[in-house]
Amino acid sequence: MNNQVDLNADVGESYGAFRIGADEELLREVTSANIACGWHAGDPLVMAKTVDLALRTGAGIGAHPGFPDLLGFGRRYLQISSAEAKGYVLYQMGALEAFVRRTGETIQHVKLHGAMYNVVSKDPVLAAAVVEAVIEFNRDLILVGLSGSQFLKLAEDAGLRVAHEAFADRAYLPDGALVSRTTPGALIKDPVSAAARALRMMTEGLVRTSDGQDIQVRADTICIHGDNPGAVSFARAVRQALENAGVKIMPLREFIR
Amino acid sequence: MNNQVDLNADVGESYGAFRIGADEELLREVTSANIACGWHAGDPLVMAKTVDLALRTGAGIGAHPGFPDLLGFGRRYLQISSAEAKGYVLYQMGALEAFVRRTGETIQHVKLHGAMYNVVSKDPVLAAAVVEAVIEFNRDLILVGLSGSQFLKLAEDAGLRVAHEAFADRAYLPDGALVSRTTPGALIKDPVSAAARALRMMTEGLVRTSDGQDIQVRADTICIHGDNPGAVSFARAVRQALENAGVKIMPLREFIR
Amino acid sequence: MNNQVDLNADVGESYGAFRIGADEELLREVTSANIACGWHAGDPLVMAKTVDLALRTGAGIGAHPGFPDLLGFGRRYLQISSAEAKGYVLYQMGALEAFVRRTGETIQHVKLHGAMYNVVSKDPVLAAAVVEAVIEFNRDLILVGLSGSQFLKLAEDAGLRVAHEAFADRAYLPDGALVSRTTPGALIKDPVSAAARALRMMTEGLVRTSDGQDIQVRADTICIHGDNPGAVSFARAVRQALENAGVKIMPLREFIR
Amino acid sequence: MNNQVDLNADVGESYGAFRIGADEELLREVTSANIACGWHAGDPLVMAKTVDLALRTGAGIGAHPGFPDLLGFGRRYLQISSAEAKGYVLYQMGALEAFVRRTGETIQHVKLHGAMYNVVSKDPVLAAAVVEAVIEFNRDLILVGLSGSQFLKLAEDAGLRVAHEAFADRAYLPDGALVSRTTPGALIKDPVSAAARALRMMTEGLVRTSDGQDIQVRADTICIHGDNPGAVSFARAVRQALENAGVKIMPLREFIR
Repeated sequence: MNNQVDLNADVGESYGAFRIGADEELLREVTSANIACGWHAGDPLVMAKTVDLALRTGAGIGAHPGFPDLLGFGRRYLQISSAEAKGYVLYQMGALEAFVRRTGETIQHVKLHGAMYNVVSKDPVLAAAVVEAVIEFNRDLILVGLSGSQFLKLAEDAGLRVAHEAFADRAYLPDGALVSRTTPGALIKDPVSAAARALRMMTEGLVRTSDGQDIQVRADTICIHGDNPGAVSFARAVRQALENAGVKIMPLREFIR
Repeated sequence: MNNQVDLNADVGESYGAFRIGADEELLREVTSANIACGWHAGDPLVMAKTVDLALRTGAGIGAHPGFPDLLGFGRRYLQISSAEAKGYVLYQMGALEAFVRRTGETIQHVKLHGAMYNVVSKDPVLAAAVVEAVIEFNRDLILVGLSGSQFLKLAEDAGLRVAHEAFADRAYLPDGALVSRTTPGALIKDPVSAAARALRMMTEGLVRTSDGQDIQVRADTICIHGDNPGAVSFARAVRQALENAGVKIMPLREFIR
Repeated sequence: MNNQVDLNADVGESYGAFRIGADEELLREVTSANIACGWHAGDPLVMAKTVDLALRTGAGIGAHPGFPDLLGFGRRYLQISSAEAKGYVLYQMGALEAFVRRTGETIQHVKLHGAMYNVVSKDPVLAAAVVEAVIEFNRDLILVGLSGSQFLKLAEDAGLRVAHEAFADRAYLPDGALVSRTTPGALIKDPVSAAARALRMMTEGLVRTSDGQDIQVRADTICIHGDNPGAVSFARAVRQALENAGVKIMPLREFIR
Repeated sequence: MNNQVDLNADVGESYGAFRIGADEELLREVTSANIACGWHAGDPLVMAKTVDLALRTGAGIGAHPGFPDLLGFGRRYLQISSAEAKGYVLYQMGALEAFVRRTGETIQHVKLHGAMYNVVSKDPVLAAAVVEAVIEFNRDLILVGLSGSQFLKLAEDAGLRVAHEAFADRAYLPDGALVSRTTPGALIKDPVSAAARALRMMTEGLVRTSDGQDIQVRADTICIHGDNPGAVSFARAVRQALENAGVKIMPLREFIR
């Protein structure tokens, strides 16, 4: 049994007059905050405010770079070169750091967003470019990625600390990849089922795939999606189930070596 | 007589397939590079390449934040709050720093672009917000602004090093402000006249206004506009006139205290 | 007493994953729909959907062009030339028309958004440019603008049909202009007060200004702001107060000559 | 032997201060103008100016919709749904029409840009969505697409007039697709070779592929790329070779039935 885990959520996704998410409540439940950096979501005022919120709740601050696709919320694959991948991640990490540094804090982790997250799990060339960006920017950052992915292996080999991420509310394929959001049943909307899945990941290290197999999954951090109305109660359900079972919920920085 | 001066130019203004400027040649003539940060011009690949170019030529690297107005190239006034001004400058400085840090170098200076440059020269509230942004980001940066402006006074009072900027190729108003770009005669296109004006600024500390008066102007750095075809030969003419008169051309970091 | 009036609301302001407004409910209460055209808000999918919604409820369809400032939701003044004003309005009207034409319907009206609405009320050069754009695009469109403004006078002189717009939920200055949104008290949040103001506009042709005077105001159409949570009940309150007093609520096309 | 052909070029690709292409000269050589619609390139002022230029030279005016990717100039594949494809094309055709209608002219054709052009050649679902958009917008428009593609077949079956496009300056694969721009040898830079290829397309209906086969190609229109320095002399070389051989160069509207 794995004794501790981080809960992470995407926050800071509002953009100007466009409001998304209940960041304030959500940040009381999770221990790591993936803060959008202005490309797929987020803007400078939102970034400043979200960094301040995370500091108040003690959540670890993460850069959450995405594709330059505000219209698609970074969820659509865009064909980019490895130089672009590296540049896009550097740019967004740098932008976020400006808001973090003014508080005396530092960035804890980096987690890619949406389609960029998915593509590096599969494409070793883009994966290597992102790892390079993180190393050149700050080799003390923890890189969060799909549990068991080649991306994390590559990052570890390059000397980065990594956190294997599992999803309590997403259906899994037999190879450990996620079922695409556009497939029916891809999202697990019932908090009780999600909490049970999260708990099983921690106690048995297993998750049941969409075709009924049990596969191994390592969960250093569990993702709580913030962009649905029930996100907060969802987070509470997962948190409570884990805490009741004696799993300690804490930011990545406290246990990732 | 003032014995040394910096020459600065806006560079890194290309955007994707859109190419602007002869950065490589221009960076051999100037000593400080104002690098666009992706909002009014510039993109991550261009920023990376321009930082590398500046390192090779020895030009001091500057962040060049502008309004979020790619369509208007940051030259159109946009009504922003002081929180927005602060956030926009922080964001862009941070983004540029990511590309500088990976080279082991540091940012030398900050110079606002276009309409943002102009508005802080007049609006003390926005000026204070920008000074705050620079201080919170890195109080070692040199702030470049309109020579004699309240903006620079405010920055100095707040403890920042400042560089007074003069324009060899722009017409002046009696109060030391620049004649608007859209007014006929605002731009001095003849390199010989511009070089003569630059020289007089250094030797006598004076510039002739558009209505024929001589006013005092302090020039720690002289701006060379890079977005016109003759920019490089223009820069050479100014540089040569100054060097022939014994003025030393060097980056701000070497003489601004 | 004025016997009929249109109620208009800004709709179609969602953008990708960013959701704004309760368009479906709101469009059951109002008779004219100002549909964002993708620059300050709105996107092609949202435009298509909103046009379809308006058709189902019978609301007159309006183009609602704004500044190219998604981040500022078109509410921040941007310094543009008259050629830009004309081009921006043409572009956005054209874009909307593509979605309207596919339904066999036509656009009823044009109403500028936010800061663009405000600036043409004051700046005769930009006002003339916008009138030119509408005339060249389709001289059968009804132009909606600030009641009593020079902008509408100019449009009428040029041969356009115009609709004078009044605001039930905004404070007025003695000259008939609106108190700026950022001034305390600018927004009237109580539906009962707003309904009473709307009714008085129709029955007496008067509105009380923020300093207590009564000024004349002509209301061909009354604006219902859609971007606050209570918009729908707000619209219902205004509608009911007017209907109870015998004022007929109908789209502009049914009574503007 | 095919007796007539259209020459088309992408124009109106400047964006604000970012200048691309020698539109004025190029439009004297070609007979159809693909005008960017503001998404991958182009802006309202550029669109107005380019429409006016095309009218003066007699070139047929075409809408040239692309992906919402200014940074990538519309050349990068973006994963969109069929509803998005339809909406994006409707939006951009509508926007362009506003500038055309004010001149009393009409749009002659539609040609997709870059990665959107490529993807509809292969993806029948997106192809159908684009055909639907054109039919709903204006079924008199001529749809330009890759010669021999399923996309054009589908458009013809739906009742649209189509123009088969061939490329004098691009290498071909054996299946009639183009060699990717990023592959060495993809672009034929020598005007003489390109002119010879164009001529052979017209006289023999054949083009030699990159691996040395001859394949059939129908050329109703030949593309002249405008975004390279030699575009104008390139266009002249092709034009002259064809005219010398007795091929008549004329806009699509004059011969496509």
